[in-house]
Amino acid sequence: MTSTEQAEPAPRRRRGRPGHDQSAILRAAVELFNRRGYDATSMGDLAKELGLTKPAIYHHVTGKEQLLGQALDDALDELTSVVTEASREQPGTGAYQRLREVVRRSVEVLIAHQPSVTLLLRVRGNSEIELAALERRRWLDDRLAALVADAVAEGALRDDVPPALVSRLLFGMVNSLVEWYRPDGAYDQAMVADAITSIAFDGLARHEP
Amino acid sequence: MTSTEQAEPAPRRRRGRPGHDQSAILRAAVELFNRRGYDATSMGDLAKELGLTKPAIYHHVTGKEQLLGQALDDALDELTSVVTEASREQPGTGAYQRLREVVRRSVEVLIAHQPSVTLLLRVRGNSEIELAALERRRWLDDRLAALVADAVAEGALRDDVPPALVSRLLFGMVNSLVEWYRPDGAYDQAMVADAITSIAFDGLARHEP
Repeated sequence: MTSTEQAEPAPRRRRGRPGHDQSAILRAAVELFNRRGYDATSMGDLAKELGLTKPAIYHHVTGKEQLLGQALDDALDELTSVVTEASREQPGTGAYQRLREVVRRSVEVLIAHQPSVTLLLRVRGNSEIELAALERRRWLDDRLAALVADAVAEGALRDDVPPALVSRLLFGMVNSLVEWYRPDGAYDQAMVADAITSIAFDGLARHEP
Repeated sequence: MTSTEQAEPAPRRRRGRPGHDQSAILRAAVELFNRRGYDATSMGDLAKELGLTKPAIYHHVTGKEQLLGQALDDALDELTSVVTEASREQPGTGAYQRLREVVRRSVEVLIAHQPSVTLLLRVRGNSEIELAALERRRWLDDRLAALVADAVAEGALRDDVPPALVSRLLFGMVNSLVEWYRPDGAYDQAMVADAITSIAFDGLARHEP
């Protein structure tokens, strides 16, 4: 810096502490909700976790419902985008191919948005926000079951298990990864996506060539 | 009733209300823990749910930790029995066959003990009791991963996915059923067990004969 340059003037008043903006509060809230349970977590707990006063947090967010809603929207928006894309009929791409693709992309979303998806999967419907999230989940489940049914109808999938049950179990396996996946663990995202698609579509048993 | 028969005398003092014995309290507690979260549930909530006073409940149990411990033991004792049996080498029965059997029997346990298994699967390790339950779960996970490894070693399972990851995903699919299975729903226990073993071992894709 030359002597003629001016350092940026420090702002007179800062809103909240630096680094504790809304997205940092949201991250901490989701982590706390997942660790202790949403209902058991108060804004006071969150303030304590962040080393802030409650008024400092309320400066950024209206309450824990807002944080829950934002986290659930984060997860649901991503999953909706993946499922909507997969549900769209594409020339030259059958339902089976789109189903494999939606499994792979769901794994990507679950790993990239693990905290908010974890929260979503634990929602029980105890409030308006949770009920709205469950409604959006049901929409996703219905689209996925329809895609499975299409893949059965085109003759690519076994037809001895009801499509709705296939969909439950297939995405039950996918969703289970939020419970144990660790980004710094032994398996990267591609490895998990490959394992799930291999097991689900081709099975664990070694098939004779 | 003839005139010489005597009606049973009413007991002078009854301990708690009839029908609200310890096992009924435990059932209600587990249902409430699953619905609202263990940490968010107080003995006062449980008393309210049962229409009893808190002292009436404390007459039967020492506190919510005892109820949690009993529920977790219920789930863990059943699962331990299934896994121990499957881990035992049996003449003429390979690891692959024992793995298929442990999947089937796990489904039976999850359905027969759905409330306590649901609670077990949500345990986060917030107390000594929960940490002990997680320790027992880890033992089960290790035994199951070893069984998968044995089935790979005998050449019956695909070897391109690490056994520990196979085990996570396979039992992730099994465990997912506690989230949606309803005893009065469209699928009975045998149907779910068949679907899971078919999908997991033989895959969803229709194999050319």
